[in-house]
Amino acid sequence: MRTEPQLGKNCDIQPDVRLLESEDGPPPSVGREATIRSGSVIYPNVSIGERFQTGHNVLVREQTTIGDDVTVGTNTVIDGQTTVGDRVSMQTGVYVPSDSTIGSNVFLGPHAVLTNDPYPIRTDVGLIGPILEDGVSVGANATILPDVAIGEGSFVAAGAVVTEDVPPKRLAVGTPAIHRQLPEALQGGNDIA
Amino acid sequence: MRTEPQLGKNCDIQPDVRLLESEDGPPPSVGREATIRSGSVIYPNVSIGERFQTGHNVLVREQTTIGDDVTVGTNTVIDGQTTVGDRVSMQTGVYVPSDSTIGSNVFLGPHAVLTNDPYPIRTDVGLIGPILEDGVSVGANATILPDVAIGEGSFVAAGAVVTEDVPPKRLAVGTPAIHRQLPEALQGGNDIA
Amino acid sequence: MRTEPQLGKNCDIQPDVRLLESEDGPPPSVGREATIRSGSVIYPNVSIGERFQTGHNVLVREQTTIGDDVTVGTNTVIDGQTTVGDRVSMQTGVYVPSDSTIGSNVFLGPHAVLTNDPYPIRTDVGLIGPILEDGVSVGANATILPDVAIGEGSFVAAGAVVTEDVPPKRLAVGTPAIHRQLPEALQGGNDIA
Repeated sequence: MRTEPQLGKNCDIQPDVRLLESEDGPPPSVGREATIRSGSVIYPNVSIGERFQTGHNVLVREQTTIGDDVTVGTNTVIDGQTTVGDRVSMQTGVYVPSDSTIGSNVFLGPHAVLTNDPYPIRTDVGLIGPILEDGVSVGANATILPDVAIGEGSFVAAGAVVTEDVPPKRLAVGTPAIHRQLPEALQGGNDIA
Repeated sequence: MRTEPQLGKNCDIQPDVRLLESEDGPPPSVGREATIRSGSVIYPNVSIGERFQTGHNVLVREQTTIGDDVTVGTNTVIDGQTTVGDRVSMQTGVYVPSDSTIGSNVFLGPHAVLTNDPYPIRTDVGLIGPILEDGVSVGANATILPDVAIGEGSFVAAGAVVTEDVPPKRLAVGTPAIHRQLPEALQGGNDIA
Repeated sequence: MRTEPQLGKNCDIQPDVRLLESEDGPPPSVGREATIRSGSVIYPNVSIGERFQTGHNVLVREQTTIGDDVTVGTNTVIDGQTTVGDRVSMQTGVYVPSDSTIGSNVFLGPHAVLTNDPYPIRTDVGLIGPILEDGVSVGANATILPDVAIGEGSFVAAGAVVTEDVPPKRLAVGTPAIHRQLPEALQGGNDIA
């Protein structure tokens, strides 16, 4: 089986974008009104909803499912077997490893790094990506350790290194991150148009 | 209006560079003796001075003004409505968000991240990029929070997370950064040839 | 002298890869069974062993020597005059500056940043890249300062900022990093197939 990428209506696919085909599975499908900017690469077996927007040189690896109204910034990499909900905004240079689970209304600031390997190449416990529940925000250049769950509506401060689960509606800050009450300006939930 | 990009004399524009044109405004202008390496993209309404040098896959977004003798490393992204002075060196993988103000003789180390959104998608106060005064240096992988001003000649240490203004001629270090006297080896100001 | 890049048997060089030629020295040589993915650029005077694997948009600058069974992730940059041993795994978005020395069986997590300039553009002491001995692992988004040596088998935790040498078989953690005993799950050494 080898078929053409499935594109919804009114997509703007810029020059030098690669929607990769494969002998092993279906090509990527992208819903209507997408804008995919130059240099981006989308692997086979990827399913993306409507109004997908990317910067330049975005990479989405295989067996990833992405919802509607998702924006992915320049140089951001989403590795395989990852699930992303609706109305998610990833800024420039974000890294999402394989086997990550990202809810809806999630914001990932520039250069936020998620990880999935607890004891890289030392003890083999398999890859366990983090879970970001609905409405989570992760600040710029923050690092989320493998197998960590960030609870609904919580906010990870810029530069934080999150090594343990964060309950819902908390502010995680520092290295290693501790969590405390959300300040007023960060209450009220995410509004990603 | 749709015109060709304006290039000064003796520019070396490598293959696979995009100097984007637009129906909405002038194409980018680049002064003489520029070297722009492959994969780089420069948007319309960008004005760049003389002897501009880039690595590969550099992105400069619209309505940005860049002075003379500026070097921008591979994978660095400069978003829109940003001002950069003369004799600025940005290393590899730097992120400069929209609405940033960067003086002259500024150094940004590899993977330094500036930010412009105080309460991302929670409280809408508009985007307020940081201000880096003349002669500022920012170390590798440091993070500068929105609306922070770094005073003239100050030095942000590698990995620091700067959450508050830094006065002139101070060393900002740690997460969150505190500031102290500049050690002798960091006094004397920036010398970007 | 201007010759073709030297490629071993059974290499898969994807479209839009640049193996750069030069008037000043030999083109890059790459051993057999390499896979180099689209958008990657390899400069002249680079020598790479067998079974080299890259992600997309990898950059390897001139006068760098890389051993056998090395994997380099998407967007990773290896600057010039660097030595990399055998069985090294660099994940996505790693930065290795010029004049770095990386042993064998080394792991660099996503967005790990090595640096080589002790007093950038302030005091000129030359560039001194770090030394990573055999079997070192560096966690995600960690920063290694210039002229730092990480001892054999040591592990740098995610997000750590390493400012001083780390003895062998230690865990370096925090900003600035302190080092302590390796936990059991991180003992036993690196196993990069």
